[in-house]
Amino acid sequence: MEYRVEKDLLGELKVPRDAYYGIHTVRAVGNFKVSGIMTNPALIRAIAQVKQAAAMANMSAGLLERRPGEAIVRAAGEVAAGRFAGQFIVDALQGGAGTSTNMNVNEVIANRAIELLGGAKGDYSLVHPLEHVNMSQSTNDVYPTALRIAAIGMVIELSETLADLQSALQDKEALFAGILKLGRTEMQDAVPVTLGQEFSAFAEAVARDRWRLYKVEERLRQVNLGGTAVGTGLNANPKYIFTVIEELRSITGIGLARSENMIDLTQNADVFVEISGLLKAAAVNLAKIAGDLRLLSSGPLGGLAEIRLPRVQAGSSIMPGKVNPVIPEMVTQVAFQVMGNDQVIAAAAAGGQLELNAFMPLIAHNLLSSLEMLIKAVNLFTEKCVKDIEADEERCKRWLEESYGFITALAPHLGYDQASELVKRAYREKKNLRQLIMESGLYTGEELEALFTPGELTRPGLAGAKNIRKGRGLQ
Amino acid sequence: MEYRVEKDLLGELKVPRDAYYGIHTVRAVGNFKVSGIMTNPALIRAIAQVKQAAAMANMSAGLLERRPGEAIVRAAGEVAAGRFAGQFIVDALQGGAGTSTNMNVNEVIANRAIELLGGAKGDYSLVHPLEHVNMSQSTNDVYPTALRIAAIGMVIELSETLADLQSALQDKEALFAGILKLGRTEMQDAVPVTLGQEFSAFAEAVARDRWRLYKVEERLRQVNLGGTAVGTGLNANPKYIFTVIEELRSITGIGLARSENMIDLTQNADVFVEISGLLKAAAVNLAKIAGDLRLLSSGPLGGLAEIRLPRVQAGSSIMPGKVNPVIPEMVTQVAFQVMGNDQVIAAAAAGGQLELNAFMPLIAHNLLSSLEMLIKAVNLFTEKCVKDIEADEERCKRWLEESYGFITALAPHLGYDQASELVKRAYREKKNLRQLIMESGLYTGEELEALFTPGELTRPGLAGAKNIRKGRGLQ
Amino acid sequence: MEYRVEKDLLGELKVPRDAYYGIHTVRAVGNFKVSGIMTNPALIRAIAQVKQAAAMANMSAGLLERRPGEAIVRAAGEVAAGRFAGQFIVDALQGGAGTSTNMNVNEVIANRAIELLGGAKGDYSLVHPLEHVNMSQSTNDVYPTALRIAAIGMVIELSETLADLQSALQDKEALFAGILKLGRTEMQDAVPVTLGQEFSAFAEAVARDRWRLYKVEERLRQVNLGGTAVGTGLNANPKYIFTVIEELRSITGIGLARSENMIDLTQNADVFVEISGLLKAAAVNLAKIAGDLRLLSSGPLGGLAEIRLPRVQAGSSIMPGKVNPVIPEMVTQVAFQVMGNDQVIAAAAAGGQLELNAFMPLIAHNLLSSLEMLIKAVNLFTEKCVKDIEADEERCKRWLEESYGFITALAPHLGYDQASELVKRAYREKKNLRQLIMESGLYTGEELEALFTPGELTRPGLAGAKNIRKGRGLQ
Amino acid sequence: MEYRVEKDLLGELKVPRDAYYGIHTVRAVGNFKVSGIMTNPALIRAIAQVKQAAAMANMSAGLLERRPGEAIVRAAGEVAAGRFAGQFIVDALQGGAGTSTNMNVNEVIANRAIELLGGAKGDYSLVHPLEHVNMSQSTNDVYPTALRIAAIGMVIELSETLADLQSALQDKEALFAGILKLGRTEMQDAVPVTLGQEFSAFAEAVARDRWRLYKVEERLRQVNLGGTAVGTGLNANPKYIFTVIEELRSITGIGLARSENMIDLTQNADVFVEISGLLKAAAVNLAKIAGDLRLLSSGPLGGLAEIRLPRVQAGSSIMPGKVNPVIPEMVTQVAFQVMGNDQVIAAAAAGGQLELNAFMPLIAHNLLSSLEMLIKAVNLFTEKCVKDIEADEERCKRWLEESYGFITALAPHLGYDQASELVKRAYREKKNLRQLIMESGLYTGEELEALFTPGELTRPGLAGAKNIRKGRGLQ
Repeated sequence: MEYRVEKDLLGELKVPRDAYYGIHTVRAVGNFKVSGIMTNPALIRAIAQVKQAAAMANMSAGLLERRPGEAIVRAAGEVAAGRFAGQFIVDALQGGAGTSTNMNVNEVIANRAIELLGGAKGDYSLVHPLEHVNMSQSTNDVYPTALRIAAIGMVIELSETLADLQSALQDKEALFAGILKLGRTEMQDAVPVTLGQEFSAFAEAVARDRWRLYKVEERLRQVNLGGTAVGTGLNANPKYIFTVIEELRSITGIGLARSENMIDLTQNADVFVEISGLLKAAAVNLAKIAGDLRLLSSGPLGGLAEIRLPRVQAGSSIMPGKVNPVIPEMVTQVAFQVMGNDQVIAAAAAGGQLELNAFMPLIAHNLLSSLEMLIKAVNLFTEKCVKDIEADEERCKRWLEESYGFITALAPHLGYDQASELVKRAYREKKNLRQLIMESGLYTGEELEALFTPGELTRPGLAGAKNIRKGRGLQ
Repeated sequence: MEYRVEKDLLGELKVPRDAYYGIHTVRAVGNFKVSGIMTNPALIRAIAQVKQAAAMANMSAGLLERRPGEAIVRAAGEVAAGRFAGQFIVDALQGGAGTSTNMNVNEVIANRAIELLGGAKGDYSLVHPLEHVNMSQSTNDVYPTALRIAAIGMVIELSETLADLQSALQDKEALFAGILKLGRTEMQDAVPVTLGQEFSAFAEAVARDRWRLYKVEERLRQVNLGGTAVGTGLNANPKYIFTVIEELRSITGIGLARSENMIDLTQNADVFVEISGLLKAAAVNLAKIAGDLRLLSSGPLGGLAEIRLPRVQAGSSIMPGKVNPVIPEMVTQVAFQVMGNDQVIAAAAAGGQLELNAFMPLIAHNLLSSLEMLIKAVNLFTEKCVKDIEADEERCKRWLEESYGFITALAPHLGYDQASELVKRAYREKKNLRQLIMESGLYTGEELEALFTPGELTRPGLAGAKNIRKGRGLQ
Repeated sequence: MEYRVEKDLLGELKVPRDAYYGIHTVRAVGNFKVSGIMTNPALIRAIAQVKQAAAMANMSAGLLERRPGEAIVRAAGEVAAGRFAGQFIVDALQGGAGTSTNMNVNEVIANRAIELLGGAKGDYSLVHPLEHVNMSQSTNDVYPTALRIAAIGMVIELSETLADLQSALQDKEALFAGILKLGRTEMQDAVPVTLGQEFSAFAEAVARDRWRLYKVEERLRQVNLGGTAVGTGLNANPKYIFTVIEELRSITGIGLARSENMIDLTQNADVFVEISGLLKAAAVNLAKIAGDLRLLSSGPLGGLAEIRLPRVQAGSSIMPGKVNPVIPEMVTQVAFQVMGNDQVIAAAAAGGQLELNAFMPLIAHNLLSSLEMLIKAVNLFTEKCVKDIEADEERCKRWLEESYGFITALAPHLGYDQASELVKRAYREKKNLRQLIMESGLYTGEELEALFTPGELTRPGLAGAKNIRKGRGLQ
Repeated sequence: MEYRVEKDLLGELKVPRDAYYGIHTVRAVGNFKVSGIMTNPALIRAIAQVKQAAAMANMSAGLLERRPGEAIVRAAGEVAAGRFAGQFIVDALQGGAGTSTNMNVNEVIANRAIELLGGAKGDYSLVHPLEHVNMSQSTNDVYPTALRIAAIGMVIELSETLADLQSALQDKEALFAGILKLGRTEMQDAVPVTLGQEFSAFAEAVARDRWRLYKVEERLRQVNLGGTAVGTGLNANPKYIFTVIEELRSITGIGLARSENMIDLTQNADVFVEISGLLKAAAVNLAKIAGDLRLLSSGPLGGLAEIRLPRVQAGSSIMPGKVNPVIPEMVTQVAFQVMGNDQVIAAAAAGGQLELNAFMPLIAHNLLSSLEMLIKAVNLFTEKCVKDIEADEERCKRWLEESYGFITALAPHLGYDQASELVKRAYREKKNLRQLIMESGLYTGEELEALFTPGELTRPGLAGAKNIRKGRGLQ
């Protein structure tokens, strides 16, 4: 490979001649080869947007000349659009509070701007990564600002994706509204519900997640751009400070605002802990729903088997015809990972010291990765699983009738003692309880049939109030 | 000890004759002796309030006669007021979704009501724990409702306690506004800040916590009381359902509302995950602040020593005069515990199955314990530490002057290269940088003195713009 | 209440006249009222043992006179035996690396020793908490040493408790060895196993836990007693240092050894992280087993219902006759709590700074509490659940026969394609697969019956090799 | 792109014509696009080794013909050597207990074997992914076995990497043995230590980590290969079962053994929890060491500055000459991530149900990723940081002399009261304590100089016993 030579505070180094990145990136690559994962592209895009806004504000304030300024604006726009993706090569778990990723972006934009101006890569006399691209900025205001922008985009996307899931669950709620089945508490037979009600509970939980994310987004809009190194804004021209947020607002389309206390936002990362906590709440709901779907679809014959999940791939190389609930399993795994990431984010945020949190890259990696995984997992969950769930109505009915789950509904009519006595007898004699009730002459088959409807058994109030109250129950 | 004999589904058992609790409690005590920690009194109080409301609603609906009903109301009121505290003896980590604690409360109220009616404890023909005290209820609607009530009370209290901390931090912000000092990022000398600004960042973070808790409280107001076993409201009289919430609102003074989907709230615990996530965010901020206070007060001579914490106890049995930052250390420990509890709550919430979450007692224990510890720790932090922090102004000044932290402010005037050169020379020759600048004839002592003010060094913009811009810096 | 007045570095304070504790304890109580939980008695006992050993070693080294020395030895012995339990009143989450608990023990022993010598409490001229009881020691060597002693005792006890659980599981393994049933992977019908094999897998996992704990105990035996404040042993008489461990060994009956690097053990807490990690592995196994028992006992009619758990308490106030798997639920809750505690321990251990870890009390609290809960939960699990589990052999058989779980065994004989075809037909026509095979004339009922034995279906190799190989399967 | 068409249980699908993977892989890619991270190459390699061993054992047992068998052996060898890396394209967080990754490997080996035999990719009549490559196996025995093999390799590598770190720390221990400095407990000035002793404590902790990993490796050697679907070994030829482990042992060079209870190992994942717990212990030690290095190197002027870390990259775009401790920061981040991964592994392991743990891919991903990150981070830590740490001896000395840290050593000579009085006076009068002692005529400068040596101040026993005992201290 051919190289050019660049120089920094620590000396000279070879950089691949065609690379848009420069010496700081090369050093950082060598220092931080740990996770093999690169910085999330959404963060790179947001940093590039910050650079674009800064260049425009610097030009407005008369600090940056038009020629390099406009080249930076254009180059940053290209980076934001996803070009040069392969040039961002610093490990996601880099030390240094994000400086290396900021430097990487500075260098790529500078060299692209140089190229646009007809210069040779590395000729920083035309456009300098620090003096021009990073002008009036510090990693410490750029990085947290960009992380907020990246997070806002994903939070909105996740909220929308959850809306689709909610909607798919509600479709099932409607479709299964008439399917009466056994409810189970602590995995023990309890009172009747409808399958539709079960899906309504899923949908409601997802609706809460959606709403929480919708609301938290506004808390992310406060940024510390303009605060430079520690949030005091030292060396940042006031005119620049006031312009840059406006530019950034117009570039990103997000209603960003400069925080009144930039020192606070430079050092405190609690807002990311807050968001991650909400992602964890969503993860918990997803794990609950996915777990229930695995229970309800257990079988096909030797389990509850009240629903059938769509078959998305063969499940076993040894057992003919076996198909597994792989989508819910994947969803649960993502949920567990998000819960673990949440712990990492909290540890990192708690580890801030004085004017800065050195662990911002760890926070960024875990937060954006949780968001991205949730977006994808929720989408796959909706499309490849929830939408095509089918009910086994017959099986639902059979469990209810074979169990004692409906006896609670008769208890007020029969008295608890008589009800308990019937249950004991059925269990002892291994008889079907419904059959036994009919044989005992307590109720006719028609009476019981009338009772076995969602309207009677799954709504507030005394079941069978109309048909059964005056019945033989109250002997 | 003397005993009475009680009976349940599983047979007979001896109960201490004077005990207000009964057989279900005795069985549960034997089954769950694991943590040695009892159910949080705030939860017991809330359950008693639910019982009171239920008795009133049952009377209104004509389901419960006045005599036992009124005795229950009075007995429940006494329990809610904290009487009979020693009667709630079931372990906090009980299995069974809270049934045992619900039973414990039912029994204590029943026996106290019996006593009020002149009966002998255990004579449940007068007032029955299940048929009267628990009438129209199930653990599955009582327990989550009560947990919300208990949590709301503590969330409000914590929010107020945080307000006091915020206020104490803001007092220090004002007091220390003029104290210029070295800012540090990644524990390395950075640019100047004021000590007041550092406290403003602490205060701002706490303000966010306070606001979050204030907002989340409303999400807790939806309850599933009336839903009975699985949220369908089976066997609950509609008149009761509509009255009971109203009664509970008036008893608790909290604007509770019946959820439109009681099935959802019976099985989903994500709202507790959400709150716990916010507690964790607060914990993270507290850990950050406590950690900073320990760093800033490190010394008294061999550390930064920029502030002095109040001395609350002797610190060492072997080192004469040593005093340690024990209050911040305690705060950090509470923060770590809250972060661990958060993980437990999430695991428990994710472990719900179908119509119920069997792990509600674990959620309740960890949530209420996090809330209680935070309330107490924040209060101690404010009163025993923050309020009496003193600054060592001289030391603050010395660090700033001895370090190169102010050179960034001169860089625009001197040019980066010259500034860097000065730093290198000072380091090489082990000279004081300020001295060196004066010796070099770049600036006079008066000029530098004029620069060394919070107004110049810790506000946005070019430091020394007025005094220094035309100086010899720009050679 | 009547008081005496004591004095320390910070001034005077009133102490209840009858209290054995003194001024340091009173200050600490006021400073740390956060969790309401006291220091674990096992730790108090171990500290008292250290005090006893130290007094004896100090006497041997000629540093401590016989009269106070022997009084200390006797008083410490009483404390170790559990007397004065109510005198240890400092919160478990105290700041200060354990100094307050050490002081509390020093004071109680001193005052008891004074009492034994006929003096009045508080007359420290007879026996001084610091100069005599704490002689040659520092909290920083006493506390970690005592924590190791306390942990060793509990680790051994837990190991033995796990042995009982293993043995109970193995009894079931033997009892259920002949019960053939459907195996399930990913909650989907898989190939046959015996119920005994399922319990053997539980037993094996528990055996590993037991062995791990047995092995880790030896890693706890290295102690830093003699290292005083930072592990260098400053001011500790070499004769004392060499004697004290010997004394402690004989008092505790544990093979303790002085670490060769006491500085290391004074500041590093990784061994507690290691143990907690093993407790977490045990918790994971317990959660898995408890979860399986809840699945296998789901029903009694509307679930798998292959086993019946002993009924330990009534499960519902609204559903007649409902009994829940409360013991496994409690076990799972303890498991989740232990997993959360583990995270707390790791965070605390990682937070050590330089010569000490200030968060030792948090580590101690979580570690000992995990150990204690596990000991109790495992014991309850064994006694109140596992020992009395019954199989429902008929139900086991029915699931296997109704499902396609045995077809894998026939696949090699019939060919995968024919086997798959049969499954599809059975599913389509909703026919029992076994019936269908007989109707198809592929095998007779006798042949199938011969196949349906544990020996054929649940051991390595081709099932039915003897009876079926030459059958009509291989068409 | 050109395609071939393949078929499975669910129908037909297009596969890129040149791809070595097949239809199962293509389905899985579509189902599981969530994390963007692929299965760890070490796991792919280990699965290929299992395939190779299985093919050889199947040939030995006469189950697999030579022609396809030998082609499989060769193809599997190539895959194990890292060829075809780009063909393993299923997401690491796939559902289905690892089936998709197993299928992916089966398909790549089959198609490569077909190619070796001169056939066209997709012509599975020559070598079939399931019937030949997967013969006698199930994902459920292949995947856990391969995970153990992969983990063993990395555990050994990590152990060796830690040995290098330990050795580098010990070099510093030796180099800094004579540098006397202030010890600090709870960030407060304590008694003297040497800088060498501080590094010895680091080294000792790392030595424990190394030893733990060395010991745990043997626990990973038990495998369940041969157990097929649920560990019973159904359909696996006994001859195959006995041969396959032997083959695998010889291929991998690891002393693997077939578990006596393969059912256990098929469903229980506690051994991975155990290892992860040890990785967490290592992470905790690394975080402690990295944190200390950041504290000790804080400065360069406004902090402790007792050591200097090597400068590996420029630290700031705004502050001239600033260099940050980026390597320790990266190490801490990796430590936090490992601690989070540990929680994920525990949650996944606890979530196993009955005969299998569906979340094995999540366990594998987090475990191997923790191992890999630790290996790399520890290596970078050693090479780019620890090896080139320098001491600032003068600064170390200054802190000690300016503080009261040495007074504890004089306390036995002067008496605690006189020592305390001197400290108070020095503090009040802002005088240097050493100076004050000389001025007071208590000791001469020579006497104090003689005391200020590592031999006197940092070893067990009374400091200055020889020189000072008879001094004026004991007045």
